[in-house]
Amino acid sequence: MPTNRQILLDNRPKAEATVDNFKLVSSETPALKDGQVLVRHHFLSLDPYMRGRMNDSKSYAASQPLGEVMIGGTVGEVVESKNPKYAVGDQVVGMGGWQEYSVVDAEQPGALRKVDTTHVPLSHYLGAVGMPGVTAWYGLVKIINPKAGETVVVSAATGAVGSAFGALAKARGCRAVGIAGGPEKCKYAVEELGFDACIDYRLHKDMYSLAKALKEACPNGIDGYFENVGGMILDAVLLRMNAFGRIAVCGMIAGYDGQPLPLANPALILVNRLKVEGFIVSEHMEVWPEALKELGTLVGTGKLRPRETVAQGIASAPEAFLGLLKGKNFGKQLVKLI
Amino acid sequence: MPTNRQILLDNRPKAEATVDNFKLVSSETPALKDGQVLVRHHFLSLDPYMRGRMNDSKSYAASQPLGEVMIGGTVGEVVESKNPKYAVGDQVVGMGGWQEYSVVDAEQPGALRKVDTTHVPLSHYLGAVGMPGVTAWYGLVKIINPKAGETVVVSAATGAVGSAFGALAKARGCRAVGIAGGPEKCKYAVEELGFDACIDYRLHKDMYSLAKALKEACPNGIDGYFENVGGMILDAVLLRMNAFGRIAVCGMIAGYDGQPLPLANPALILVNRLKVEGFIVSEHMEVWPEALKELGTLVGTGKLRPRETVAQGIASAPEAFLGLLKGKNFGKQLVKLI
Repeated sequence: MPTNRQILLDNRPKAEATVDNFKLVSSETPALKDGQVLVRHHFLSLDPYMRGRMNDSKSYAASQPLGEVMIGGTVGEVVESKNPKYAVGDQVVGMGGWQEYSVVDAEQPGALRKVDTTHVPLSHYLGAVGMPGVTAWYGLVKIINPKAGETVVVSAATGAVGSAFGALAKARGCRAVGIAGGPEKCKYAVEELGFDACIDYRLHKDMYSLAKALKEACPNGIDGYFENVGGMILDAVLLRMNAFGRIAVCGMIAGYDGQPLPLANPALILVNRLKVEGFIVSEHMEVWPEALKELGTLVGTGKLRPRETVAQGIASAPEAFLGLLKGKNFGKQLVKLI
Repeated sequence: MPTNRQILLDNRPKAEATVDNFKLVSSETPALKDGQVLVRHHFLSLDPYMRGRMNDSKSYAASQPLGEVMIGGTVGEVVESKNPKYAVGDQVVGMGGWQEYSVVDAEQPGALRKVDTTHVPLSHYLGAVGMPGVTAWYGLVKIINPKAGETVVVSAATGAVGSAFGALAKARGCRAVGIAGGPEKCKYAVEELGFDACIDYRLHKDMYSLAKALKEACPNGIDGYFENVGGMILDAVLLRMNAFGRIAVCGMIAGYDGQPLPLANPALILVNRLKVEGFIVSEHMEVWPEALKELGTLVGTGKLRPRETVAQGIASAPEAFLGLLKGKNFGKQLVKLI
């Protein structure tokens, strides 16, 4: 039995999360029962939603229990199988958590999915052709539902969700405008990801300044907004929304650490007859096949070339995760485990 | 030609609106042209949306021009006609404005509608069986779309919109909970309007106190909320919304006078996957016939017994309107002109 190194949630953050909230342990992987497979993880996905789960308070997902392996998406390879549907060597995506191996009851619906790496690199099944990509797809297609020619905006534009959002929006004939932190990310958004414009929010000290930049980047106003961040960015976007605009609320990472971040002017929801809708993509499994098909084609044909930031080894996961929360990553944040 | 007394918007409010923003003038009604009718107004409707139109800023409707008759819904009687479709004595509802008479181009779509007062008193066509009633209907049916057994809440529960909302919600098998100002209104909401419970927001100094009262009144949480007020009431309701709840934003009267009122915790939209949607009923004329039919039946069969506060004479309109903005009215605020 191989030794399995795991990261547990040891204690909950008081305000900002720190590396001391996590604990690295080792254990032997248990013997398989009938129907189970042993997966060796090649990559672990780090995603902002995990920060919400570290809190004890009611969040948009169940709390992560203390003393257990941190939840997380993984891609890897079957190394042992007591399930006739899976063979050693199969490449699979699942929710293996922050550890090097996982034992999976492969019959459980949604527990494991075989993937084909002919045209799509394995790691992208955690990003553009995985949960983040489907998240972008759902918000764009099911909530914003843009017409060709409309203007859509996304915050955290170079992240895994944002970059997929840009490609999906361009495929629908929209003007796609990103918001990101720093000139390098903005350059990448326009030159590599195909955004029509990208605004560096770090250049703006308040919502009025950012709203002015949005006005220049969105001369016809904003019809749809995909929210990953919250706070000042949302306040600024609201000032530029067109009548009957749609806002898909996917994340409010700006407020994860502490006191609630207020929304400056909710009356704009009425003034502009907006629809603001929060969602969690795992509650809409019915769209995954259609979304993954489109995303796989975009990646396979080179129309979506997602960037990755890869940390090495399971021990690096906590620090890489904290960096993600601060926007230190560039594109999809992964941990390489092999 | 009869003399027509009119209220003009003389100047815009600096912060709170005052009687000095208005001016009473008299003029002769002009001779009719072909196709026109002269309507003598019996009742003028006063509604919160008018406050928004007094501002110059971008609002959810065009600004009311200075020096012109204040916009407003009216019911009355045709007293002179140069239109073959209208006879002297016809009872009509229209947008006659804050004046005693109006000359109407009766061919213009939506300008005038004949009404039947056999089962529904004329004044109710400005309230329960008029724009406020349809407003409640649209928010409940098209945005909240509740299932029987769900809990829905409305602020300003004894107003023209709120009282119709309560009756419509009860007709759909919902638990209907009102929020109103003062014990008399709350008693009326439960005993006369059929609300299952009504909370006096004046007893609560902050959103946590009000949220606690909501928890008691809504033991299964809140599935739908109809927002007329904004501010602390919205903050408190958000704390008690169930997953996948719907919020119809119809008014934010709390913020009409001055600085934007922030929303304390917008992340709850994500946490509970809420849909928050602003609307203006005049943009959804397609629902009016269906809505008016149901509302007329509710009033005609006594299932909705709306209360009215009636000011006497056109000169009383400004003061009655300012009272409405402060919640001094009880039920639908009207001005009787005859």
